[in-house]
Parts: sequence; C-alpha cells; structure tokens
Amino acid sequence: MMERKLAGTLTEENINQEVLLKGWVQKRRDLGGLIFIDLRDKSGLVQVVFNPDYSKEALEIANKIRSEYVIELTGEVVGREQSTINPTMKTGKIEVFVKEITILNKSNTPPFAIQDETDVSEDLRLKYRYLDLRRSPLQETFKLRHQTSQAIRNFLNNDGFLEMETPILTKSTPEGARDYLVPSRVHPGEFYALPQSPQLFKQLIMMSGFEKYYQIARCFRDEDLRADRQPEFTQIDIETSFMTSDEIMEMTERMMQQVVKEVKNIDIELPLLRMPYKEAMDRFGSDKPDTRFGLELIHVSDIMENSGFKVFQSAAQSGGKVALINVQGEAASFSRKDIDKLTDFVKVYGAKGLAWLKVEAEGLKGPIAKFLLDEEKNAIISRAEAEEGDLLLFVADKSSVVYDSLGALRLKLGKELKLIDESKFNFLWVTDWPLLEYDEALGRYFAAHHPFTSPVEADLDKLEEDPGSVLANAYDLVLNGYELGGGSIRIHKRDIQNKMFKVLGFTEEEAKEQFGFLLEALEFGAPPHGGVALGLDRIIMLLAGRTNLRDTILFPKTASASDLLTDAPSEVSDVQLEELSIQLSEKND
Amino acid sequence: MMERKLAGTLTEENINQEVLLKGWVQKRRDLGGLIFIDLRDKSGLVQVVFNPDYSKEALEIANKIRSEYVIELTGEVVGREQSTINPTMKTGKIEVFVKEITILNKSNTPPFAIQDETDVSEDLRLKYRYLDLRRSPLQETFKLRHQTSQAIRNFLNNDGFLEMETPILTKSTPEGARDYLVPSRVHPGEFYALPQSPQLFKQLIMMSGFEKYYQIARCFRDEDLRADRQPEFTQIDIETSFMTSDEIMEMTERMMQQVVKEVKNIDIELPLLRMPYKEAMDRFGSDKPDTRFGLELIHVSDIMENSGFKVFQSAAQSGGKVALINVQGEAASFSRKDIDKLTDFVKVYGAKGLAWLKVEAEGLKGPIAKFLLDEEKNAIISRAEAEEGDLLLFVADKSSVVYDSLGALRLKLGKELKLIDESKFNFLWVTDWPLLEYDEALGRYFAAHHPFTSPVEADLDKLEEDPGSVLANAYDLVLNGYELGGGSIRIHKRDIQNKMFKVLGFTEEEAKEQFGFLLEALEFGAPPHGGVALGLDRIIMLLAGRTNLRDTILFPKTASASDLLTDAPSEVSDVQLEELSIQLSEKND
Repeated sequence: MMERKLAGTLTEENINQEVLLKGWVQKRRDLGGLIFIDLRDKSGLVQVVFNPDYSKEALEIANKIRSEYVIELTGEVVGREQSTINPTMKTGKIEVFVKEITILNKSNTPPFAIQDETDVSEDLRLKYRYLDLRRSPLQETFKLRHQTSQAIRNFLNNDGFLEMETPILTKSTPEGARDYLVPSRVHPGEFYALPQSPQLFKQLIMMSGFEKYYQIARCFRDEDLRADRQPEFTQIDIETSFMTSDEIMEMTERMMQQVVKEVKNIDIELPLLRMPYKEAMDRFGSDKPDTRFGLELIHVSDIMENSGFKVFQSAAQSGGKVALINVQGEAASFSRKDIDKLTDFVKVYGAKGLAWLKVEAEGLKGPIAKFLLDEEKNAIISRAEAEEGDLLLFVADKSSVVYDSLGALRLKLGKELKLIDESKFNFLWVTDWPLLEYDEALGRYFAAHHPFTSPVEADLDKLEEDPGSVLANAYDLVLNGYELGGGSIRIHKRDIQNKMFKVLGFTEEEAKEQFGFLLEALEFGAPPHGGVALGLDRIIMLLAGRTNLRDTILFPKTASASDLLTDAPSEVSDVQLEELSIQLSEKND
Repeated sequence: MMERKLAGTLTEENINQEVLLKGWVQKRRDLGGLIFIDLRDKSGLVQVVFNPDYSKEALEIANKIRSEYVIELTGEVVGREQSTINPTMKTGKIEVFVKEITILNKSNTPPFAIQDETDVSEDLRLKYRYLDLRRSPLQETFKLRHQTSQAIRNFLNNDGFLEMETPILTKSTPEGARDYLVPSRVHPGEFYALPQSPQLFKQLIMMSGFEKYYQIARCFRDEDLRADRQPEFTQIDIETSFMTSDEIMEMTERMMQQVVKEVKNIDIELPLLRMPYKEAMDRFGSDKPDTRFGLELIHVSDIMENSGFKVFQSAAQSGGKVALINVQGEAASFSRKDIDKLTDFVKVYGAKGLAWLKVEAEGLKGPIAKFLLDEEKNAIISRAEAEEGDLLLFVADKSSVVYDSLGALRLKLGKELKLIDESKFNFLWVTDWPLLEYDEALGRYFAAHHPFTSPVEADLDKLEEDPGSVLANAYDLVLNGYELGGGSIRIHKRDIQNKMFKVLGFTEEEAKEQFGFLLEALEFGAPPHGGVALGLDRIIMLLAGRTNLRDTILFPKTASASDLLTDAPSEVSDVQLEELSIQLSEKND
C-alpha cells in the first residue's frame, strides 16, 4: 500500500509523484467541467483537481462531495501554471490530479464554516467544539500548547527533576478557595476534595527526599468564574529542596527563556527584572505591572498635604494618597466628554472622581486649577516632568483605591493610545510581598499567599508582635501585565509553622485537625524547601497571542461551569445518589 | 558559595577536593572518639567522618545528631585505607572529613527505620508515606516511573503525536463502572463525573481533526478495590485517525520496545506474537496468558464424548469441555494430599473436582483409571504427549469453569514449580475478541469492551441477526500474564453506532440522552479512528519487578479507598454541603 502523505507538506519536490492523501473537504468549487477541492488534514491544505481526462469515476464521486466529507484519494502532484499559482497558500504552487477517491464518511452541513475567522457565537462554537477545533487558529494553539509542555519537560528533565503524579482525590482544606467535593461511597458521610493545587503533596514529596519534583498538574477551584478563570486549570508545579529563593527564580527564568525560544524563537534577556511589591504598586498601581509602556503613577501626596484643595489635602493627610498619570501630549485629544468617560471608568474601582489638569503655555488649566497655589502647581509640573500639551489625571483617595483606579486607567489608556508594543515579552519578578493581609471585617489576618509560605529570615522575630509588617520569602512571575504564577520558600520548621497558624487565628486543635499530617511531617527531618507554580493555560494564551483563556483549553467550560458539548453537569440517577448516601436538598422556592 | 555536590556521585576522582553536601543522616556510629555518619541524599549515600583533628566544633555538633536529621556540611574527600574500603557501598572507596556542619532540621525518632528491607505493616508505612518513600527501593521505583513516562513521551512526540489534556469534570455515563460524582454548586441537583477514561473525549479529538493524540491521563473508578486496583490510576491514552488496527498495534509495540530498552536495557523482538482470544483461552485458559512457561491446557473432550466415565462424558456432550494439564515429571512429587490441596484450589474457580492420573510404566494409574477404556487412555497419552512420571490433572465442566480453573491452576503450578523465567518480558497481543457478551441473568448483551468498539468489517452484517458471533476490531496487550491494556478501531459511522446501541438494548431516547453529542459528532465528518490505552501503574509495577500496585503510586489509597496520610475522605462542614444543595442521607441503623 502507498504511504499516506500529509496535504500541507507537499511541495514542488513532489511533482510527478503519485500520492495517497486522507482528510477533510475544506471547500469545493466547480469550474468548467472540473471540480476543485481544498483538502485539509492536520498539516494544512492542498488543492486537488477532478478532471474527466484523469478519471471520470473520480469526478462522478467528487460530484457528491460536500464540505467536511472525509475522503481518501490517490493522485498525481502537478505543478501549477504561473497564472494559477496561489501565493496565499503554502502548497499554492502545486495541485493534485485525482485518479481514485473513496468517501470515508459524509457530513451534514456544519452549523458554521470551518474557517480562520468566525463571528458565530461562542456558545454555538462550544456546543460543536469538535468543529471549532478544526479551524486553523485553534489547531495551531494546541500544537503550541503541546510544544510548550514538552519544552518545559525537556528543561526540567535535563535539570534533574522527576515528574511525579499527586492524587486528585484528596482531603478538603477549607482555607483558600472553595473545594470541589466528591462523596465517598465506601465511607458514607465523608468526602474527598479535588486539589486546588498540589501544594501539600509537593511539600510532602520534599519531605520524602526527592529534592526536585515537577508536575504539569490539574487543579480545581469552585469559584465564580471570570473571563480568565476555569473550574479546572493546569499548573506547572515545581518544588525543590535546599535551594534559595534566588536559585529558584534563576532556574524558573531559565526555563521560561528556553520555552519562549523554542516556541516563539524569541530571545529573553536574563536575569529578569526584580521589583519589590511596593515599588510595583507605587509605579504601576498593580502587583502585576505591564512594563511594556510608561504612564507610570506619579505621587504628589507630600505636595498636597497642606493644600487648600480639600479633596487632595484630606486624602494626603488621612493616610491616603494623591497620585496622577501624565498622559503626555494628549491634552488636546481629550475633550471634557472624553474625560467624563474616564471618570466613570475609575468610579468602578471605587474612586470618587477623576481630577484633571491640562498643561498649557500659561500653566496648568482645568476645573481644579483655581484651588491650587502656584507653588503647588509648579511642584506638580516639576514632579510629573509635565510639558505643554500634557494631560494630568489625578485620583485622591485611600491607597488601595488610588492604586486600583489609576492602575486600571493606565492600562486602558495604554491600550487606547496604542502605547503597547505587542511584540514584546516583558517578564519580571515581583518580590518582597507582605506575608499576611489583615481583613478589617473579620478582624483577623489571612495568609497573603498560603499558610506555608516562609517569612523572610530577617522578619522572623516580628511574626508574633507585628505580623502585618512581615515580608514573605515569596515571588511572583509577571508577563505583560498578567500574573503567570508565583512561589515561595516554605516553612520547614514545626515551631514557625505553629506560630504562623496561631497568627492566622487557628487553635492548636484546628491546625491539627486540618494539617496535622503536615505538622507531624515537619518533625521528621523536613528539608528546607520551596518552589513555584505557573499557570500553563495563561502562558499558552500569551504565547499564542490570544485574549480568551477558553481558546487555550481543549474542552473548556462556560462562565457557569457548564460543558456545552457533553452537557455536564447533569442530573444523575437516584440509585447513584443512594449508593453515595446523599440526597438533594429540597429546593427553597 | 561552594556548589553542592551529591553524596552518591562522589568517587576517587574527588579525592582532595573540598565539597559541600546536604542531606539526611542515614546512620550514625561512634568509634574511638570519632563519629561516622552515612549521609543520604537523592543520589545515594556517602560516609562522612567527624574527627577532632579536623574540627572540634563539628564533632561537638555531630554529637547531637540523630537519624533523619537534615544537615549541611563542608569537608574534604579522602581515600579510604584498603582495610576500610566498603565494597557494598558505591562510594565505599572514599569518605568525607568534615570541617563545618550545620543542622538544617531535627527529626524525632522515625516510627520505622529508613532501610531497603522492612517488615513493618503497610498501614504504618502509608501513614508515614513520606518516610517510606525515603527508602531506596521506592526512590528507585519513582525514578523508573519518571523515566518510563519520558520514554513514552519521547517516542510519541517523535511520531507526530500531540499531548492534549481532557477534562476531569465530565458527564456521568452510567454504562461501565461506577462513576465518582462531583456535585455542582452553580447547578443545584446536577453533578459532574470524574472520567473512567478519556474515551469519548479522545474520539472527539479525532473528530476535531487532530489525528494523533496522546495523554498520560488520570482515570477514576469507584469500584470495590482489589490488591491491584486503585480508585485513581494513570493511563497512557492514545488515539489516531486513518490508521488500521495493524498499524496501531505496530506503533504501540515499537513504543513498548523503546520503553523497555531505555528503562531496562532489554531488547524486545518485534513483531510481537498475536494470538486470537479463542486460542489464548484454549491453550492457557486465560485471555491474558503468561507465555513464559508451558503447562498448556490439553483438550480431550472429543476423546471423552462417549466415555463410560460419566463426569467426563456429560461435560463433553453438554457443550462443556474436558481438558487437562500435563505436569511433566512431577507424578512422584505430588502426594494424594498435595492433589487434595489442588482440588480445593480449583473449587474456588467453580470446578466440582480435579481428576488426576499418573503415568506409570504400566500405563495411567489413579482413581479414575478404572472408568476409562484402554483406547481412551492411549488417546489421552498420545494427545498429552505423556511420558512415564508425568502427572495429568483434569477438569470437566462448562467451558468457562474449565478455562478459569485450569488457567489458575497452571499459574499456580508454574510459580510453585519455578517454571517461570522471571527475567523474561513476554509481550503478546490478544486479538479477535467477541464484540458482545450475553448476560444470562439480565437477558441482554453488554459491550465486551465499550459500546464504541467497531466490529470487524467482515462481521458487520451479522450485528443485528447474530450479535453473539460478531468479532470486535480490538486488541489487548499482555505482558507476563498481566493485561497492560488494549484498544480498538472505533465506530465512525452513525448508522453502525445506532445499530450497536440497539443491540445493547438502548432505546433511541436513552442513547441520545447519554451519548447524543457523540452520535451528532458522527454526522459531521468523523474520520475512521482507533487507539489504545495502557495502564501506566501496572507497566511500572512489572518494569520495577514489584508485585504491589501501591508501590508504584506516590500517594496510594488503601483497599477501602482511604488515604492514611492525609486522612481522606473526611467529613466536611454543613456550610459546604449547603452550598452544594445536598445533604447526607439519614443512617439506616
């Protein structure tokens, strides 16, 4: 039997060869007694021609063929005449004259055309995901996903890591996001939980003496979904013993460098920038700054502390902030109405308003200009390095609102003013995170990352007296304004872990109940260890230049966590529930 | 800072070098004012020596050190005197004289010693899995597991396969084993199921045009566990379009050949033996024959059809079988009592008894000899190629009992008589499986493999009139008497799939309800496709020469599906249940 050739790989070198092809009918055209078909397989497209001079029988069969039929054919590769060469097609210099054809399967008319660009609703595409996935951009995305996974594995394998599999049926640990639960049939009234991450298991792997672990691991969070969240997602999960945070960051960035080189052929310069959390917030209003453009926040609280403009003065005096963005050279392009729209935008982030000034030849002009002293205006101009034609946009509020609103405004303006070089891959580390966050409403501290994160050595003493000031030995990897993930050095000593749980408000009982196995393991020679976890789906999204996380997951779920293709979740039989010793709660209508 | 060296990699080439080591204290011995410690890390062991002439401070610290303490030290590599060389230790020609030491973490006395051989209960080892895993045989098993996974990936990547991830939160399909269910919070009263295998998704991937898919996939079955079953297990999952079953088997065996070569450096000869299901049953009484030894079944139903020995005659006449195993040269070593024990053994498999004859110089002797005619005896001797000193063991019953009991007896005798060459890796394919199995009790057919398996082309016509006689286009891979997995060509045409569901007793409604999305996908250009799935855990078990599947899984569960380390499953809070709109059934005491 002839060996099958792949459609998209045929070139002028195959001219005069007889080839066997199998694939799908992308498009059929009838022209002057001939039939032309674009044949598609996983490698791409080639034009095949049915000509009565070659085979009347084949032409007759071709007459019955429609889009998405699956066919097998043999034919001769022929060079096209100069005038019929298709320069937009990789195989456009040749075509295949068909001698024999078999229809392997028919197809109904698809609900949407299999083409690169489509405007049909996402719901319809998800219901017919197997048709959507035939489109070339999605085929390419999943090839890239495959390449990326293998590049990661190659790097880690060469670096002495072992790939290891941790359980999916695990114990529920309410601290953190909401767990997906799995009722146990054998133990009525008891439940497994699907892991939010392999965190505890990878620490146990270090306590098992393996020293270098990785896994491309499935994780689960039962949270209300946003556009960039999925109930199940994939994480590059790494843990090491005896390595410092510096060493882990260096290893991780070499891995990402190799991935980007292998997959995109782009060179990333190392070492990556490291930016303390506080600096990221102050300069970009974000803990995951997009450093591909400017529009940084400029702080003027000190200038406004004694200002006659009460809005600014009170924010500056009451522990809040006054900050601005200098939109250089854009004063003329923003009308009052445009600025009103920006004001509405920042209000979403809690800002009470957006003050503005335009820099004109005579000085600062705008509604708030009259409240400011000349020396205040000059100080602002000097601090903002403002020049004629610049637009200054101010928010004065408590710190979190200033960061959130100006951070979001910065991104919005960056995009709209096309300040972002989309070809750039700007990685950086954000470091020096606070270990704990205080929840005012609940009156207790929460772990900013998770309760196993180690404080930095220097702050160990402060853990009990001044927990809010303690920095974590933690680091996040950011790419183009997206958090790819992060990691930390973990606590490896029992007494420190005890203190940590105490600060988090756990009684000894509670800590033991939930994490007793880990606490015990710390007492049997747990090595110093730490690691990192990166979101694979998001990495693929950024490498593939896509904006929707669902495009990077083969069979994704909707925002209501449904699979529109298989119709999951769905009702199950009473027998199944009985076996699990559970019943449905009565509905409260 | 000095770069860390790995303990187990030090050789005479490192003599006179100063090295930095980190790891665990395997053993401490005090001798003549010196302290000797076996230091263990992931690479192995090295002896380190504390000598007051080198460092009094280090010796003092070493005094406090106990087993499983985690330490960091610098020292000088020194060649051992001839008399102190330890030939059982890879690093036994050298030792390290310690200059500085730091205790990184302490350890309580472990509940069992970290040594290669152990006789503590498995329950205790599972509770302290992180200690059990420090033992060298388990360290080696998980290195082997890593190597095996990577060898599989390397082969498939080079062969043009894409690794793709299918969902864990899927739809429940009651056909097959029992599903693990996951209640949906967003859709009260509805459930996801954890996949028993990615079967439907990998078929959908073929319908998506990817042509070559693989995944090292987690699968879940909520079944009563046996020693070689786990609630979650890992499967090498492969699917291809446009390939024949021959091509899939050839590809799979080349993959296994490469794996065994890379991991064990053993050469497997290809092509593998292919044996029809019927032949496997007839010769070995098993659909997963261990072909490393003889003791094959010998069929004598035809000889016994008109025998005066009623037990044999009625079995032969009523559609059952009479068969024997010739235990060559062992007549003298089996006493009547020994044979009684074998009789008890076959009764477990439903046999009513075990008839026997010994071949003596004068002919066949034994309790049943008197019931047989001389011509029958001669025919038996001739068929069994029996010689003086042989022991013939007979079962006469319905076919399934003859196969099961003699198949099991064959394995038992093979082991006890040490007929099995444990160094052999005997792979073979079992082919020509029946498509359907008839359940007498329920009065309906069940899919022998799953309902998507294609009949062989030649039997397509018989699917409706004589379903019991239809062969499946399916194949199982067997190694040393274990089923590693199997596969099939799938049905890719809607009308055949419809017929299949009809034969299985599904109404159109039911088929649509459960598998509507697949049936619909068959109508949009589904390509011919098929694949294979192999159990990774079992492959590791056989490659590592182990007998317990739990030793191949990092954090396994017990026979009652419990994780003794983390104590999963466990009770959850009422709030969690309320959010999921479920409640526990009241206990029926």
